[in-house]
Amino acid sequence: MPEFLELVPPPQALARLMDHIHAIPSPELIDTGKALGRITASAVVAPHPLPAFPRSTVDGYAVRAADTHGASDALPAYLQVVGEILMGVPAAVELRRGQCALIHTGGMLPAGADAVVMVEHTQSVRQGEVEILRSLAEADNVIKVGEDVLEGQEVLPSGVRLRPAEIGGLLALGLTQVVVARRPRIGIISSGDELVSPHVQPALGQVRDINAYTLSALVEQTGGFPVRFGIQPDRADELLAVARQAMEQCDVVVITAGSSASTRDLTAQVIDALGEPGVLVHGVNVRPGKPTILAICAGKVVIGLPGNPVSALVIASLFVTPVLEAMLGLKRTLPPAGIQAVLALNLASQAGREDWIPVRLVATPQGFLAEPVFGKSNLIFTLARADGLIRIPADANGLPAGARVEVVYM
Amino acid sequence: MPEFLELVPPPQALARLMDHIHAIPSPELIDTGKALGRITASAVVAPHPLPAFPRSTVDGYAVRAADTHGASDALPAYLQVVGEILMGVPAAVELRRGQCALIHTGGMLPAGADAVVMVEHTQSVRQGEVEILRSLAEADNVIKVGEDVLEGQEVLPSGVRLRPAEIGGLLALGLTQVVVARRPRIGIISSGDELVSPHVQPALGQVRDINAYTLSALVEQTGGFPVRFGIQPDRADELLAVARQAMEQCDVVVITAGSSASTRDLTAQVIDALGEPGVLVHGVNVRPGKPTILAICAGKVVIGLPGNPVSALVIASLFVTPVLEAMLGLKRTLPPAGIQAVLALNLASQAGREDWIPVRLVATPQGFLAEPVFGKSNLIFTLARADGLIRIPADANGLPAGARVEVVYM
Repeated sequence: MPEFLELVPPPQALARLMDHIHAIPSPELIDTGKALGRITASAVVAPHPLPAFPRSTVDGYAVRAADTHGASDALPAYLQVVGEILMGVPAAVELRRGQCALIHTGGMLPAGADAVVMVEHTQSVRQGEVEILRSLAEADNVIKVGEDVLEGQEVLPSGVRLRPAEIGGLLALGLTQVVVARRPRIGIISSGDELVSPHVQPALGQVRDINAYTLSALVEQTGGFPVRFGIQPDRADELLAVARQAMEQCDVVVITAGSSASTRDLTAQVIDALGEPGVLVHGVNVRPGKPTILAICAGKVVIGLPGNPVSALVIASLFVTPVLEAMLGLKRTLPPAGIQAVLALNLASQAGREDWIPVRLVATPQGFLAEPVFGKSNLIFTLARADGLIRIPADANGLPAGARVEVVYM
Repeated sequence: MPEFLELVPPPQALARLMDHIHAIPSPELIDTGKALGRITASAVVAPHPLPAFPRSTVDGYAVRAADTHGASDALPAYLQVVGEILMGVPAAVELRRGQCALIHTGGMLPAGADAVVMVEHTQSVRQGEVEILRSLAEADNVIKVGEDVLEGQEVLPSGVRLRPAEIGGLLALGLTQVVVARRPRIGIISSGDELVSPHVQPALGQVRDINAYTLSALVEQTGGFPVRFGIQPDRADELLAVARQAMEQCDVVVITAGSSASTRDLTAQVIDALGEPGVLVHGVNVRPGKPTILAICAGKVVIGLPGNPVSALVIASLFVTPVLEAMLGLKRTLPPAGIQAVLALNLASQAGREDWIPVRLVATPQGFLAEPVFGKSNLIFTLARADGLIRIPADANGLPAGARVEVVYM
């Protein structure tokens, strides 16, 4: 057969493609409160220190630390209480030597104070006076100005996916808007004479096109914007016309081809006609997903996925997801690795080819057990029954029961 | 101090609350294509078998397996080629003894055929005839009707969070709508005289309220619907009025209180006034987050969180997230455990109290190293710099460098 003159190992296949991927232009300024999951497109610098004023971390008395030196249960220091610090307003008092003020957690230290003694370490003796039972150092129980972040400090680099904590940090600085990467538009084309929409009752011999939807969901999950271009028949002219339209409107075009050799050749021809340099990889040494096509056409990424729904989803998570993450400028991803687990059964594989096996995780007192979910590679519910995928490396003949494996999510 | 008569260990505190949590009523019927991340509210049963017709898994010839018995390279079987099976239509031919038909991957087997021989294991001899070089068993290279799922089979239980694979599985069955749990409404109230909106320039002594936003993001991430009720002053009457309004409109009410003992007492009094049985837990033996309040009031869940933004977010992930997941009916959660890592430094802790420490993960050839991110517990950027949290159990005096730890996400 003419196809697959060279089966490229997955890491090299990905590297060939990634050489051409750049961060996407035109970042967006959006509300920080709506930025969950979005990715910073530039570094964020603190416009002011945080906290902006010295704050107490306990309930107690703001003091001048020097006034407490040598104080203990046996030999308390006696300080004059000159007032109470109310929340949300600057202290009305200024402490002089021998004075203190009642303060609450989070309250602003009055001028003159440099430490706070916990109320548990004090004793009221008479109106307007308190015994201090501990010797304090400067800044004890105080958050100083700029202790969280300094003015001008970089608080977030670019390429960070915003979680609740980052959103809180930005808002703490009054940054109610944030510059994030535009969501890359991923055009999705399904081709195959046998395909019908999931909304249509298939006749005998027809199957519902689900790749457009599983890929849309994967793209959405990763932070892209899926654009579906419908189902195309296995004819070069029609597929080419739609692919060109998708290239105009999108940053990446993904075509899921039929699974037969003839339709795979058709997809490769169409992709090669989309522009230079064209197909970089045609055939990857991986199962499932051997007939994968990776291409750059006139500056756009074009990926041909196998039509088989399991292969399409696995290969998309191996190739489309990293492309999207690189376009988003994501610098720090939590592992492609997820959970460590122990393999429950012996698994055979063909040396020289990388295999990806769906597994189900079972929690045990010793950690997670990864139980392979077997099934022919076009059974979508095989994946639905799995928690993730494990990899059998190309240089292995399989993996023995008891082997430590890393589970990657789909 | 009158509060915290009993500090409850976190697992018991959670258990006391969870005894009262039920799956939320009124599930919704939504489009499957828009159901990413939603949770099934009832089991899904296959309306028909999948595949619905017998399909070839390879390119080759559909045959009657019996016709190939004994065939080999040395002694081929000769079969008459009676046609080609086109994609997307039922076969026009019916195989009789000694006949075969050209078929493509995914094509429908013609009547009479029960196996497919790969094209690589055949040889064309003359027009209309092919040599079969392998002996096949029934069902070789065929997916039989119902091999993925049988008609009437439960394909998804209730309580499953829908990923791309599940969405594909549902659509493969023509299930274009799915019944999912309604998103629980979580009312969020911030109280504190020192708080201002992040959109306002704080005066000296004031701080921006970020808890309302970090909690909204956490709720959104978990699958709930956050409803913010703004900032309330530290006055019982006003807080009570807003809490009652939140209870009417929401399934759960979360109040972040000021951090001082007096405002914590205020929150507890307000919560106790909201209905029976009232406060179940007031004070949890955990750091950060000791002043946590867990309550059931007139059938609604009410949670009082510490005002300190780090404590609020950590405690919300320990208590609000599991409540939400239980309301959503989520049966199978991937671990509260995430990544396994090795602790980089010795960490001290107070025996008898559970500690949660923010860590940053560093990938090494030996796996992940968890580096503690130190900072006073109200520094929000401490969390923003962390990848997750690790737990020091209550019965430990700390953890040594090199200890295996599990990293929980926020």
